[in-house]
Amino acid sequence: MSDIEIGRAKRARRVYAFDDIAIVPSRRTRDPQDVSITWTIDAYTFETPVLAAPMDSVVSPTTAIEIGRLGGLGVLDLEGVWTRYDDPEAVLAEIRSLPPATATKRMQEIYAEPIKPELIVSRLAEIRAAGVPVAGALSPQRTQELYKTVVDAGVDLFVIRGTTVSAEHVSKTVEPLNLKKFIYELDVPVIVGGAATYTAALHLMRTGAAGVLVGFGGGAASTTRASLGIHAPMATAVADVAGARRDYMDESGGRYVHVIADGGLGTSGDIVKAIAVGADAVMLGSTLARATDAPGGGWHWGAEAHHPELPRGNRVEVGSLAPLAEIMHGPSTVADGRVNLMGALRRSMATTGYSDLKEFQRVEVVVAPYTAN
Amino acid sequence: MSDIEIGRAKRARRVYAFDDIAIVPSRRTRDPQDVSITWTIDAYTFETPVLAAPMDSVVSPTTAIEIGRLGGLGVLDLEGVWTRYDDPEAVLAEIRSLPPATATKRMQEIYAEPIKPELIVSRLAEIRAAGVPVAGALSPQRTQELYKTVVDAGVDLFVIRGTTVSAEHVSKTVEPLNLKKFIYELDVPVIVGGAATYTAALHLMRTGAAGVLVGFGGGAASTTRASLGIHAPMATAVADVAGARRDYMDESGGRYVHVIADGGLGTSGDIVKAIAVGADAVMLGSTLARATDAPGGGWHWGAEAHHPELPRGNRVEVGSLAPLAEIMHGPSTVADGRVNLMGALRRSMATTGYSDLKEFQRVEVVVAPYTAN
Amino acid sequence: MSDIEIGRAKRARRVYAFDDIAIVPSRRTRDPQDVSITWTIDAYTFETPVLAAPMDSVVSPTTAIEIGRLGGLGVLDLEGVWTRYDDPEAVLAEIRSLPPATATKRMQEIYAEPIKPELIVSRLAEIRAAGVPVAGALSPQRTQELYKTVVDAGVDLFVIRGTTVSAEHVSKTVEPLNLKKFIYELDVPVIVGGAATYTAALHLMRTGAAGVLVGFGGGAASTTRASLGIHAPMATAVADVAGARRDYMDESGGRYVHVIADGGLGTSGDIVKAIAVGADAVMLGSTLARATDAPGGGWHWGAEAHHPELPRGNRVEVGSLAPLAEIMHGPSTVADGRVNLMGALRRSMATTGYSDLKEFQRVEVVVAPYTAN
Amino acid sequence: MSDIEIGRAKRARRVYAFDDIAIVPSRRTRDPQDVSITWTIDAYTFETPVLAAPMDSVVSPTTAIEIGRLGGLGVLDLEGVWTRYDDPEAVLAEIRSLPPATATKRMQEIYAEPIKPELIVSRLAEIRAAGVPVAGALSPQRTQELYKTVVDAGVDLFVIRGTTVSAEHVSKTVEPLNLKKFIYELDVPVIVGGAATYTAALHLMRTGAAGVLVGFGGGAASTTRASLGIHAPMATAVADVAGARRDYMDESGGRYVHVIADGGLGTSGDIVKAIAVGADAVMLGSTLARATDAPGGGWHWGAEAHHPELPRGNRVEVGSLAPLAEIMHGPSTVADGRVNLMGALRRSMATTGYSDLKEFQRVEVVVAPYTAN
Repeated sequence: MSDIEIGRAKRARRVYAFDDIAIVPSRRTRDPQDVSITWTIDAYTFETPVLAAPMDSVVSPTTAIEIGRLGGLGVLDLEGVWTRYDDPEAVLAEIRSLPPATATKRMQEIYAEPIKPELIVSRLAEIRAAGVPVAGALSPQRTQELYKTVVDAGVDLFVIRGTTVSAEHVSKTVEPLNLKKFIYELDVPVIVGGAATYTAALHLMRTGAAGVLVGFGGGAASTTRASLGIHAPMATAVADVAGARRDYMDESGGRYVHVIADGGLGTSGDIVKAIAVGADAVMLGSTLARATDAPGGGWHWGAEAHHPELPRGNRVEVGSLAPLAEIMHGPSTVADGRVNLMGALRRSMATTGYSDLKEFQRVEVVVAPYTAN
Repeated sequence: MSDIEIGRAKRARRVYAFDDIAIVPSRRTRDPQDVSITWTIDAYTFETPVLAAPMDSVVSPTTAIEIGRLGGLGVLDLEGVWTRYDDPEAVLAEIRSLPPATATKRMQEIYAEPIKPELIVSRLAEIRAAGVPVAGALSPQRTQELYKTVVDAGVDLFVIRGTTVSAEHVSKTVEPLNLKKFIYELDVPVIVGGAATYTAALHLMRTGAAGVLVGFGGGAASTTRASLGIHAPMATAVADVAGARRDYMDESGGRYVHVIADGGLGTSGDIVKAIAVGADAVMLGSTLARATDAPGGGWHWGAEAHHPELPRGNRVEVGSLAPLAEIMHGPSTVADGRVNLMGALRRSMATTGYSDLKEFQRVEVVVAPYTAN
Repeated sequence: MSDIEIGRAKRARRVYAFDDIAIVPSRRTRDPQDVSITWTIDAYTFETPVLAAPMDSVVSPTTAIEIGRLGGLGVLDLEGVWTRYDDPEAVLAEIRSLPPATATKRMQEIYAEPIKPELIVSRLAEIRAAGVPVAGALSPQRTQELYKTVVDAGVDLFVIRGTTVSAEHVSKTVEPLNLKKFIYELDVPVIVGGAATYTAALHLMRTGAAGVLVGFGGGAASTTRASLGIHAPMATAVADVAGARRDYMDESGGRYVHVIADGGLGTSGDIVKAIAVGADAVMLGSTLARATDAPGGGWHWGAEAHHPELPRGNRVEVGSLAPLAEIMHGPSTVADGRVNLMGALRRSMATTGYSDLKEFQRVEVVVAPYTAN
Repeated sequence: MSDIEIGRAKRARRVYAFDDIAIVPSRRTRDPQDVSITWTIDAYTFETPVLAAPMDSVVSPTTAIEIGRLGGLGVLDLEGVWTRYDDPEAVLAEIRSLPPATATKRMQEIYAEPIKPELIVSRLAEIRAAGVPVAGALSPQRTQELYKTVVDAGVDLFVIRGTTVSAEHVSKTVEPLNLKKFIYELDVPVIVGGAATYTAALHLMRTGAAGVLVGFGGGAASTTRASLGIHAPMATAVADVAGARRDYMDESGGRYVHVIADGGLGTSGDIVKAIAVGADAVMLGSTLARATDAPGGGWHWGAEAHHPELPRGNRVEVGSLAPLAEIMHGPSTVADGRVNLMGALRRSMATTGYSDLKEFQRVEVVVAPYTAN
């Protein structure tokens, strides 16, 4: 694995980003309408393998409902403005209008407002009332404090999401969350991450999670590499975690844990590649924040952007491109892989001759850096 | 082949674009005037190994005639404006003048106009009357519906061209074109593609095609990689298909199927490299669209640019550089490989000591990414 | 080692820069507050592994004191403006205001002013009076002439720093400094460099040095590569010298010589990577010159920038970002790895599960060129 | 050698440019004044290993004299404006002032003016009168017609230079120059090239040449790669030809043919690298055209820029930086490797511990693409 010598005292392994790879057609082609892109996890079947990321610029109760109707799963951030403020729309409007120089500082203040459990309850109830699957996300740090509120409010899927979540967190000051015990006792299926390596993912799978989020700071709004020196290019990360899925299935006697690529998925081409290297589904952030009906209103940011001492991301302007429905299913009038994501996925599968997502994980991949023509 | 590990569950192969490679001189040099660049396919011999791509910005009946007189083969797109409109010049003028924001949308409407069989007949007749070889192109989807009209109108070479054409298309709703049967029954030689891999090309060769177009979305106006995640860098694609030609020649007992590089050929240097890695001829799009007498009038677009639901290309401004005659044969007053394409090909062959195209396929190639000096 | 053939008569080895690599999380995570970043060299323990580079734009007596209070070691350049001028502030102000076209020429004149031994004494005394560790730097060329003044003035750590310092300097005209004899006779521990290769560093270790500076012209203000063709990318250089540390520890029966990365450390991510590939500490230049209270006042330059015949660096504008205290320890309101360097180092160690710097040298490293997402 | 598979039917070899490599210091250092950079070819010893390229923007009779006095060899282009026009200064002034759009066209006309043998005689006499070594260059096409004039006029070194010169030129229309016979019969030593590969250079060495120019279209003003697809990155080309020098020395029983890097030498760092990979000397174009007293007056162009049918280079503005004497020997007030070329070469050799050019060919080289820090 670590076959490159950086210097006498250090070896390393070459890793790959989505931009480093592409897929190639094979001998067979197919009609796009004959292709299935449904995704089933636990008792839930979705028409598309798309989760909307728990970020304030992507998912509000309203967009969670819309995404559910479009065949995906909207995951509400239960530590964002919707559970801290009675009137989050005003807060979102303020974030949009902040001048660049002071944006990070003001966002640090905005997100210092305490979380209100009663707002967790009412926001989730609003989504449930629309008849779509309900999902909410907490950070590992807050899970113990708030999960009862969440479960009592009622969710179909429970998401625990941080930049890095490990099955073995060590702390001298607080008793860390025992993921295995927690998941075992919970009635709802849990999706947990990010994990970016084989070993980290394998340990998360052993906690009993239904799905693992793959990623670490690869998103459009992240500066993790400059700040922490940490970088996990997504093509390698997904393919490694897919390897953990295979090995865990063997060791567990057949339990299939879903691999969900989370981060660095800016175009339909990236979604295609994520599945090609082994993902079962994708969690989308900036890609959906570009919707005219996204709560970010043309802007996008993650929780790292307002860390109180060490912000590791920026509020970025992504623009407003088309309604969510068109971004997901078209028709498109732009040609750059940002609209009609699912149509592009279908066509890519059809052009390479595959008929469902699981089969498509076997498509041939090539290494071809993006700058090449 | 797949000697790179992307991650535990996926392996891939490194592929190369024209920009990644270059050719190098050897011990012998030659006079450019002693070099032959003629190309013979089936019963037809051309003074140059150049086909003009069936795109509305490149080939009109008038330019097909001009290209024929300059020693190449102009292929008319039989699903473009010339067979949909009585007055295509007005339509071309409108496309040129469209504002960027609405160009794709309006082009989708323009190309929704039905194809008129009688226009196929009259356009091809116009070319034939000039005494040059006649060639027209259909997409695989339309071939069954329109080929009789085309053959009755009279073509010397029949081109079937799509982004990806396979010998084995699967559809649940329509009976797909049986290429092998179709080509067997047809009297005229057929050129078919694009194919981008050894296997896909080998299967197309087995259908009885006289030539295979090599390429997939590599052209100047394409956004296939961002949209579909599919990318087939041309140097590898051409060298792979040349390998299929060699193996098919062996398996068929000597049938030589021509390999025609189609896409990503922006300069005379690219044309040189295409032949160096195994192409018998090249199909040119944007390179010829830069002619002052090209029908695009300084703009260039392909069929993907106006796909009704998933456009995967843009109308791009390529400018108007010199008359077609000068672009093909010079003399040139610019120094960037865009004018006197055939003069540059001759000189490159002379400088490396080769005297005909088939021999030139053996020239030494090096990997030298373009950014290096 | 030299496994690449450049051409028939030359082989070479692939080397790596910090931008070529990244670190990845493993299965365990930790609380940032449980992480130790203290660094001990000889009898001195520092709260952070940070040395401020002996450059006029980074260290004045005042900032040396401030850096000491912040847990690092400020090294004063004893051949800079502070030992040449009674009123260095005026000189620094002039350097800041020089027009680009004549800056190098005027700096060559400014640094032609003779060094005053009495200023060495008074500047070092000023630092000592503040109760922080005292360190000063001389070039190898000046060490023999000035070291007695420095030692008598009193320093805790003595730094000998040049672009390249070797244990075996050959000269026909002057008797070169015998490093081994010099260090043996000196009472204070010596840090010496730059060295960029295993062999050069091993020889420096054998002179009895307490620490070796790793680097050659990698800094933000250097043009050594264009000028001399010399380039030693830092990831490989540090990992090679860490290898020399290990081998020298074996050959010396246990003497541990500290490896200090010096140059090319523009962000907290780079600091993280330096330690990940084997550094015990880092020497920072431009990174600290960005402090609002740095003596450069928003500008940065090294001794190479005013070489009388062959300047190999420029005065560059780095801006003024935040007070030194915030750049070192936060809190930060920017997200690009330039503020809260030590907070980022702690978090990176915590996220990857390591609890002290020595242990962190074992973290997994990957090769992932920066352009990839 | 050809260990990379481009595709099934083509293999290639990875080659390297100067920008891909760097040199690294070793354990020893030296004083710059103890370093020798003299170069001896045939009976001539030069204080520097520098030839000024036979290009109208670089060498006039006046600059040939100046370069000779500075320790190099100025080679006059005997097919340039100095042998076509009585008043070349006026012609040079016109070329400088041409508008970009028509520059190539007008230069094609200017260089269509016939060569006057009597001007060859008087220009060379002017150089000889100054007491410096005299050298003139012809293209292989013109050598037979003009060499008698040149030899009778008197040259110390005779240069035959084209983009590619082979020992075996094939022509159906004219009897090509028999290099071996020609060199054997000539009394003056001949330098010939460019050659870019081992085989081509070995054959040139067998003709009896005293030196071989290494290069093909790598110069600052060339567009050969875009135009012809031909590219020979210089680090590999020089190292290959140095391999030919070694093998030819063995086969010839000890004849040492000098390897002269020609092209792509934009900075002192490039000159350093050329020698590091095996060059005995360098031929400089744009690097010297930047002199305030260069005949190009801030512009630079080669013979390829005015080829009548296929121009493969541009007139480029390089600016006027410093007098030739300073560009060669300093002192410098700029820090980018463009001034004090020989001082930089000395310092690079001193820093890496080498004392003469032949020894310096053994310095350690690393592969480190330029974008890395």
